[in-house]
Amino acid sequence: MTSPADRYGFDALDLAVLHERHSTKWRSYPPDVLPAWVAEMDFGTAAPVAAAIEAAVERGDLGYAVDLVAPDLTEAFCGFASRHWSWEVDPAQVYLLRDTMRGIELWIETFTAPGDGVVVTTPVYYPFLHAIAELGRRMVAVPVLPSTAGWELDLDGLASAFSAGHRMLLLCNPHNPVGRVYPEATLRAVAELAERYDVRVVSDEIHAPLTFSPATFVPFATLGEDVARRTLTLHSASKSFNLAGLGAAVAVIGNPEDAKAFAAISYRHRGPAGILGIEASVAAYRFGDPWLAALVTHLQTVRDHLRTQLTERLPEIAWAPHEGTYLAWLDCRALRLPSPQQTFLDRGRVAFNDGSAFGPGGDGFVRLNFGTSRPLVTEMVTRMQTALALR
Amino acid sequence: MTSPADRYGFDALDLAVLHERHSTKWRSYPPDVLPAWVAEMDFGTAAPVAAAIEAAVERGDLGYAVDLVAPDLTEAFCGFASRHWSWEVDPAQVYLLRDTMRGIELWIETFTAPGDGVVVTTPVYYPFLHAIAELGRRMVAVPVLPSTAGWELDLDGLASAFSAGHRMLLLCNPHNPVGRVYPEATLRAVAELAERYDVRVVSDEIHAPLTFSPATFVPFATLGEDVARRTLTLHSASKSFNLAGLGAAVAVIGNPEDAKAFAAISYRHRGPAGILGIEASVAAYRFGDPWLAALVTHLQTVRDHLRTQLTERLPEIAWAPHEGTYLAWLDCRALRLPSPQQTFLDRGRVAFNDGSAFGPGGDGFVRLNFGTSRPLVTEMVTRMQTALALR
Ligand SMILES: Cc1ncc(COP(=O)(O)O)c(C=O)c1O
Ligand SMILES: Cc1ncc(COP(=O)(O)O)c(C=O)c1O
Repeated sequence: MTSPADRYGFDALDLAVLHERHSTKWRSYPPDVLPAWVAEMDFGTAAPVAAAIEAAVERGDLGYAVDLVAPDLTEAFCGFASRHWSWEVDPAQVYLLRDTMRGIELWIETFTAPGDGVVVTTPVYYPFLHAIAELGRRMVAVPVLPSTAGWELDLDGLASAFSAGHRMLLLCNPHNPVGRVYPEATLRAVAELAERYDVRVVSDEIHAPLTFSPATFVPFATLGEDVARRTLTLHSASKSFNLAGLGAAVAVIGNPEDAKAFAAISYRHRGPAGILGIEASVAAYRFGDPWLAALVTHLQTVRDHLRTQLTERLPEIAWAPHEGTYLAWLDCRALRLPSPQQTFLDRGRVAFNDGSAFGPGGDGFVRLNFGTSRPLVTEMVTRMQTALALR
Repeated sequence: MTSPADRYGFDALDLAVLHERHSTKWRSYPPDVLPAWVAEMDFGTAAPVAAAIEAAVERGDLGYAVDLVAPDLTEAFCGFASRHWSWEVDPAQVYLLRDTMRGIELWIETFTAPGDGVVVTTPVYYPFLHAIAELGRRMVAVPVLPSTAGWELDLDGLASAFSAGHRMLLLCNPHNPVGRVYPEATLRAVAELAERYDVRVVSDEIHAPLTFSPATFVPFATLGEDVARRTLTLHSASKSFNLAGLGAAVAVIGNPEDAKAFAAISYRHRGPAGILGIEASVAAYRFGDPWLAALVTHLQTVRDHLRTQLTERLPEIAWAPHEGTYLAWLDCRALRLPSPQQTFLDRGRVAFNDGSAFGPGGDGFVRLNFGTSRPLVTEMVTRMQTALALR
């Protein structure tokens, strides 16, 4: 049962070695807890990415990064977008960010006023909700709806939120935590609503490279010129190449006026990018395709393995069809636990994210990070079983 | 004329190799310009630091860094402070920051109100001034005064600023850009004023490891318990070990109430640190002493070389005694140029920082970065001469 991707050792992880990591994933819980929470994978990164970091260290190139525009990163990202999604990005529209969340924070600050509503399709990556609250805006939640194809955007809900005057939508596609990669028809419907109600869209597409066939990822900004002009698209190699601690992302700004507003934000407030984040991202986008292809194949195998494990061993837990990201959104409501996350942690010694943090629709769910090996996923399910047996 | 530090090759830099760097220092000007502006040195970093970064890459340890407290970094920093300055820092007072500027920004935000005055001893590192302006506070400048020993703090000026009700002081020691390392007596006088007028002090000590004998660096917080309680001290390995693009710094918070306020600031707003910045800083503080000692010896040699060059070849330019940092504050007022920085850049193809940016007292000065080899410093002076010959 060796995965075709095993030349990279994705299925051959050593827990003792992982415990030597210094990241928050591995340092936040005691050593007897198996961490499967924050979005870091248990693999390393692609060899050309590691080599690029080492080359920068060799050059002594550890100083302040360039600001706003990083020509190499622009070129590398545009090549990647073209190869993977047939998206021909205008290089003049690509800007450097410290991280994707900084883009969201700045867009909210720049284009809404305190008290304004910002529309989110919950459950969603919880820093979206924190950003809205911290900036004194109001969360307007339009929860996703269940369907046999997986979670669906509530288009009527979006229409009424927009018609109520809320003019910014934070879209997340592929959708963390629900694992949906929205089909073009859905995105077109959202785009039409955005046009009808003159809504600005922030499209967080950070998980796009982690889309599992037969789903296909469609960049929101490719849906038309008007769509592109009202959209801030956010990408980063940090999720797909496992570089979250290095600090680099790209914004594609479809509207020159918006780009001007972005460039006018002060250097410090824009959030300086990390020089090794840029170096690593350039290498990832230029030379990472073979590793990425193997990774996606592996993750798909792990997803299928997790589904089999859950179906056989924990049938009370429901999991809608999953099309992208290495984050599984597990419906534990049938277990009738006050906090499934706490039960799994306390009694099973496995750490997931608490669904409640992801906003309306999240209670009773946990988010499980399966960016790891199949044996460790098996171990997660064993620990969940143990926790439930102790009830 | 080989420097005793030359086992590290500090004097043997190759301009062609430096031009291959991707940092903002090397990417902001055309290739015929010699960059001597932003505070990045032309050396790499210490071998144990490079090795620590490479080890993290090997471990695949590139995920989100821990937040707020990084035990290894605390331990390493406390050891460094003890060895170098006999400062026994209480580990419970050490907090992780993305960078030192974030500490200053947060302190201004937390402990002053919009419209309040924040006292700065200009000329000073210009992001201090930007932070004050961007946060809607008022800069209260108390310019340094010339003396035969070097630039001096204006204690009477500070007293009147404090007595006028301005209750926050941003101290910079060693003082970028004026190169002074303030003697204990001066710092005691400042501390007494702070006590008398109940002023909170932010002490930016990022350049402390780059103090040149016979000057000695005294951490402000060591001046007494009351002093420590009103002080936020900021340190980072980023200047002395050349790591500005990696993103890690430490705050020493002398007052538990202040620490609580700091910890209550949201994760995103505190500014997440970079994981490789932490790794690199730990290695620097633990294992960097031999390299640092050689670096300081070298920088002292370069400083003396620059002084000789200026005295012999550009006697119209004045330079007060210099005790720390690799940044020379050159008084070009006698040249009577509208902008010395622009003249040197346009006609000499050498890029310094414009003194005007550093606040009141900065007009007519340039800041020259001598964190490089003696041959390249000679080249800088040649280019300055060329620029002036073309006048
Ligand atoms: C949807 C989404 N957006 C943004 C981020 C964070 O990215 P960054 O670290 O670039 O802010 C994540 C991380 O998991 C994410 O899942
Ligand atoms: C006095 C001083 N403080 C702070 C900084 C910036 O440090 P950081 O990158 O940690 O914000 C510098 C950089 O040159 C500096 O000279």
